[in-house]
Amino acid sequence: MNRQNVRTKLSETYPIITGFGIEADVKSVFSGIYVKKAFFIVDGNVIQKQSSFVNALMQHFGDVSTFVVKPGEASKNTALFLDIIDFCLNQGVSRATPLIAIGGGVVGDLAGFAASAILRGLPLYHFPTTLLAMVDSAIGGKTGVNHSTGKNLIGSFYQPQAVLSEMNTLETLPHEEFICGFGEVLKYGAIADTAILDILKTKSLSELKENKTQLESILQRCIKIKSDIVSRDTKESGDRAYLNYGHTFAHALEKIMGYGTISHGQAVYTGMIAAGFLSEFMQGNLDHKLLGVHAKEMNIPIHSFKFTAQELVDAMQSDKKIKDSTLRFVLLNRYGRPYVTESKNIQMVFDSWQKAMDYIADQSR
Amino acid sequence: MNRQNVRTKLSETYPIITGFGIEADVKSVFSGIYVKKAFFIVDGNVIQKQSSFVNALMQHFGDVSTFVVKPGEASKNTALFLDIIDFCLNQGVSRATPLIAIGGGVVGDLAGFAASAILRGLPLYHFPTTLLAMVDSAIGGKTGVNHSTGKNLIGSFYQPQAVLSEMNTLETLPHEEFICGFGEVLKYGAIADTAILDILKTKSLSELKENKTQLESILQRCIKIKSDIVSRDTKESGDRAYLNYGHTFAHALEKIMGYGTISHGQAVYTGMIAAGFLSEFMQGNLDHKLLGVHAKEMNIPIHSFKFTAQELVDAMQSDKKIKDSTLRFVLLNRYGRPYVTESKNIQMVFDSWQKAMDYIADQSR
Repeated sequence: MNRQNVRTKLSETYPIITGFGIEADVKSVFSGIYVKKAFFIVDGNVIQKQSSFVNALMQHFGDVSTFVVKPGEASKNTALFLDIIDFCLNQGVSRATPLIAIGGGVVGDLAGFAASAILRGLPLYHFPTTLLAMVDSAIGGKTGVNHSTGKNLIGSFYQPQAVLSEMNTLETLPHEEFICGFGEVLKYGAIADTAILDILKTKSLSELKENKTQLESILQRCIKIKSDIVSRDTKESGDRAYLNYGHTFAHALEKIMGYGTISHGQAVYTGMIAAGFLSEFMQGNLDHKLLGVHAKEMNIPIHSFKFTAQELVDAMQSDKKIKDSTLRFVLLNRYGRPYVTESKNIQMVFDSWQKAMDYIADQSR
Repeated sequence: MNRQNVRTKLSETYPIITGFGIEADVKSVFSGIYVKKAFFIVDGNVIQKQSSFVNALMQHFGDVSTFVVKPGEASKNTALFLDIIDFCLNQGVSRATPLIAIGGGVVGDLAGFAASAILRGLPLYHFPTTLLAMVDSAIGGKTGVNHSTGKNLIGSFYQPQAVLSEMNTLETLPHEEFICGFGEVLKYGAIADTAILDILKTKSLSELKENKTQLESILQRCIKIKSDIVSRDTKESGDRAYLNYGHTFAHALEKIMGYGTISHGQAVYTGMIAAGFLSEFMQGNLDHKLLGVHAKEMNIPIHSFKFTAQELVDAMQSDKKIKDSTLRFVLLNRYGRPYVTESKNIQMVFDSWQKAMDYIADQSR
């Protein structure tokens, strides 16, 4: 018998460039690509509403093949994943052929997974066009599609060459998509940067949208938090879990209500309020107002919450990823001080949920 | 505009355990698994011919779900990849649920790709049962399935938790599968360890099969070469390319003749003879006898080589992975001294092929 060890090491560094008018940076990043051919995987709405932006990007390449993804979460499926792979392989592709993903989280996750699988990895460039994708899904290398048993259950860890967020594309982003991203922005504030919460406390979402300087600054704070965490914990074995603040509740909520009835940002927001109460039960010290002040503009569909606290807990426990039916939560000692804990105290989870519903109803008036 | 860098680092170490009777090592490796459930992805021939071996492995777990893979290269397809994913997700799976792959390269590549994609990565354990998988495909983290445009074009880099090669399973391995692995064994000798060639020079393949001590020692030398190379170059940007010695010719051969008409090992062997002549054209100094002595027992189907040298070169150039129709070869300055080169000299490639055919025909008499 013989034992031989394999030690593999991978280290990847890539830039995240964010701002209004980033053409020069795009040019500089693309200057490193020496092949003519590029695959563009583009969201169907974006290719229409931001056609001049998309066309300008295509000008960098001599030979562009475009795959348009039908907008919406339903596109995150294995059939479309294979369609993109077929599309690229049938056109002819080398290991140096870039795959350019333009759109929100759906396109980023889907195209990212395809990029990771074609020839075991094509160079991937993310051009997020939603607030949510800019601050969250485009950063960190998680790719994936949905399965009938749950969201994002099939995918890979695959880092892009660059994330290039042209904030001018936010101009055509529907307001409800803005709300969706805003939920994650507040999450960064809650887990890592109370300054974000302080700035937003006195500012409505509409005001923020109009104030480019402020919006850019908030985004950059969020991106710094996420990229720092991902750099420390690429495969989600430690700190990266903090990014799931509010998500145990949120996923259950999305599951019960059906994806599409409540947006991810709204679900995360609601989940954070509930996690806040749960944190308090566990001796955390939080000023609920800091998040609560946004309840009304988050437009939480509380009147559609037609289920019992028990059903919510059941939905949490049916999550395929949980071990031994112990629920895992990210909680806060205070804002900016997250920790991970496991809980079998179902009553406490019930009560947090009930308190959160009452609180949101009250704040939304 | 703001630029933020993400630096991800991954480092993974895993053991490759090889020998006759490795039960104690298996027990020790499995002792680190704390869940009851395990998925077994097993080759259809192995589950029959090595049932007691497979059953013994299953005894380590309280709850086993088994997916049997139909033997043969045709199983390396995206439909079966998705079937395995469905199978696991529908049964219920946590991030700690191990996926145990038992079989040759087909099962290892297919199950490995599925393991990498379920919940973005399940713990994977390889139990290779063919000579080829033990010395080559189970080591190094390349996973993948075939596409209509070529072999292994869809997949991932994904490292297992351990590779456990029980050499007793080789007892039921068909002789032609032994020949197949022998091609890769000779390749390791050619690129990195002339001692392997020296030992094998005076030994027939049948003699080697009977001599357990010698076989184990040869395998361990091969595994050491591969694991050292993979440790240095996980993503195939440098030295890992040396492992493709003979493969530019071999892939073209397999493509023209149709997969199954010639085994991978036979194709690699033939490719190495041709690459040897090409090396010589480029001033390499090789003793062709060292590989050539095995021509007869490799049972190369030269009488089925009913194509012109031109067709072979065309098949090389149609490979989707090549850039700008320049052909890339691994060549040797001498045995043990490989280098990578690009060639546009088609005539030289023709001539090497012609010489190799004549040489093999001569040696096979």
